[in-house]
Amino acid sequence: MREEIIFAYNQEKGRKMVGDLRGKKPVFVCIVATTDTAKIPGLSAAGQNPDLTDYTPPADVELLYYDRCKCFDGVPVTPEGIPTPALITASALKLGQIPVFVVNGGLRVLPQTPYIDVGGAPGTDITTGKAVANVHEIIERTRIAGQSFAKSADYLVIGESIPGGTTTALALLLALGVDAEGKVSSSMPVNPHTLKTQVAMRGLDSAGIKFGDLRSDPEKAIELVGDPMQAAAAGFVLGVGGEIPLLLAGGTQMAAVAAVIHFLKPECLEQAVIATTRWIVQDRTSDIRALVDQTARIPIVAANLNFSQSTHRGLSAYEEGAVREGVGAGGAAVAAILKSQGGITCQMLQHEIEVNYTQMMRR
Amino acid sequence: MREEIIFAYNQEKGRKMVGDLRGKKPVFVCIVATTDTAKIPGLSAAGQNPDLTDYTPPADVELLYYDRCKCFDGVPVTPEGIPTPALITASALKLGQIPVFVVNGGLRVLPQTPYIDVGGAPGTDITTGKAVANVHEIIERTRIAGQSFAKSADYLVIGESIPGGTTTALALLLALGVDAEGKVSSSMPVNPHTLKTQVAMRGLDSAGIKFGDLRSDPEKAIELVGDPMQAAAAGFVLGVGGEIPLLLAGGTQMAAVAAVIHFLKPECLEQAVIATTRWIVQDRTSDIRALVDQTARIPIVAANLNFSQSTHRGLSAYEEGAVREGVGAGGAAVAAILKSQGGITCQMLQHEIEVNYTQMMRR
Repeated sequence: MREEIIFAYNQEKGRKMVGDLRGKKPVFVCIVATTDTAKIPGLSAAGQNPDLTDYTPPADVELLYYDRCKCFDGVPVTPEGIPTPALITASALKLGQIPVFVVNGGLRVLPQTPYIDVGGAPGTDITTGKAVANVHEIIERTRIAGQSFAKSADYLVIGESIPGGTTTALALLLALGVDAEGKVSSSMPVNPHTLKTQVAMRGLDSAGIKFGDLRSDPEKAIELVGDPMQAAAAGFVLGVGGEIPLLLAGGTQMAAVAAVIHFLKPECLEQAVIATTRWIVQDRTSDIRALVDQTARIPIVAANLNFSQSTHRGLSAYEEGAVREGVGAGGAAVAAILKSQGGITCQMLQHEIEVNYTQMMRR
Repeated sequence: MREEIIFAYNQEKGRKMVGDLRGKKPVFVCIVATTDTAKIPGLSAAGQNPDLTDYTPPADVELLYYDRCKCFDGVPVTPEGIPTPALITASALKLGQIPVFVVNGGLRVLPQTPYIDVGGAPGTDITTGKAVANVHEIIERTRIAGQSFAKSADYLVIGESIPGGTTTALALLLALGVDAEGKVSSSMPVNPHTLKTQVAMRGLDSAGIKFGDLRSDPEKAIELVGDPMQAAAAGFVLGVGGEIPLLLAGGTQMAAVAAVIHFLKPECLEQAVIATTRWIVQDRTSDIRALVDQTARIPIVAANLNFSQSTHRGLSAYEEGAVREGVGAGGAAVAAILKSQGGITCQMLQHEIEVNYTQMMRR
């Protein structure tokens, strides 16, 4: 019998922590933002073309609240037509009856949903070396929001949606002195590592910094070469302050957030786990373990979702390296499985995803 | 020995419901908005002068998150210098370790805190007969926000801050066919009932409606002669849908919100209680019982706070009818008492309020 959850790193602690969450009530928080870095051609597949990347995060969270997007027709797809992982997240939250909250870290297009405003603004292209205008303010406001959530949930699942986010993750990690070259993930089957490294290095150059220069000042690193999602997620984790368990729901972008906290206030990660998808932990074009191993060393777990049997091309493409992760898909699936104490399986999630996929694509 | 909580209406059900909440974990949600109705001279004391009423709601919620206001120096006071009831709320939430969330129903000045945006805009003067532009959208968005909260809290406490809100409550109640003349509360010792009725009736006239015309269409009543807080609170209550207990934390403004739900979807009030202050239930210039008795008939409970022994003029003035209620002060106090299972008393709350008052006034 297939395991529902894969323990991919720091397994012993991962098993213990995840075991303690069974039957508990999670709250899912999705942090959305944009960075103009996503508009550099060839970098992101989160949107049919670079200009549409502004619509991807709001459309993603609309999918979580409604059974459809409101800010545009259809659902976000890659240039190849592969649907957003928000489809997985929405299905998992629905099956698991998990409440969702949205944090606007800095969007250009606002979602037609309730969202928590934290004073953020869209991130600029990191090649300018001036990536995020008001990091400190975003961190302060998400910090106090995180405190409120820490008092009201058994545990939190924090997801993200920001096109171009793996490139800003790379730049941030380099500024922090983490050997991340060739190790961040991608929403495309062929990971454009060379381009990502070029963009990240141009960002560091423009900011006048070198590899590792900002290890002791992660806030500055986000300001110069990061993105608003990183600021909001970091503030949120600081606000939770290690008081309740935390699933950082994402791939290498969440490894970058964990790195920020590791260098800023590591005790806030004591109850944190990275929860992602099988497509991330089995990805040969990226290496999340190596990123975490150099920094926070927190457990990595993954939902054992498998779309290889799907008759839908848009889903089976996930097995070939399209999309892989995003919108907290893996963490939401893990949370649904845990909340139901095994009542919800990956098989059931896959069925729900197929049903929702068919409905959404019919519109 | 003094009772901590006063049971003022529908006492038997009130005692039963409040008893069931002992030891449970509440979440406090403060809905803030503005209406230009507050700028009609002589109507509201929530702000030192009419133009300052735009700053009162954001300053109030800044007090809940920080130990001071950020959007202006000092704290909101009445023209006589009596401090905002947010001082009571902040003290109760702090003592009770109760998490707070802010909903922006429609503000002109934004708070420097995290807040949930629901697409609201400031309300216009109700004498125009076009009070709130997008009631339906606000209700829809707060409804889905309410659903998320209903899945994540044991029970909810919903407070409000909107200067001029008792006049819009009066107009709304009249449109709904509730005999509310001379019955809504005031933030001033002498309740300007004649002026309030004139303003409300001019609103109904401009909208082309008469007493009771909109009993079957409360959404329309808010649109024509209500305020954005009413829309947001109503949507929120609809979203919670009676699934968890609800303290409607306020005076006659919350009676108006309850009336909306009563005529719209009464089953959503099955677990609802109005939780307010002693200054409201003992007020001779208003009559909250009469309002509830004509509509929802839900229990009214009140925190038995008493500032008569205070050496601070700003606090003892509450005993003479200044302020009375607002920012969910009474409900927050009730929730703190209940959460602590009696560990927190009104006496302790009064002490905490005195300490915080001294600190805030020193700035």
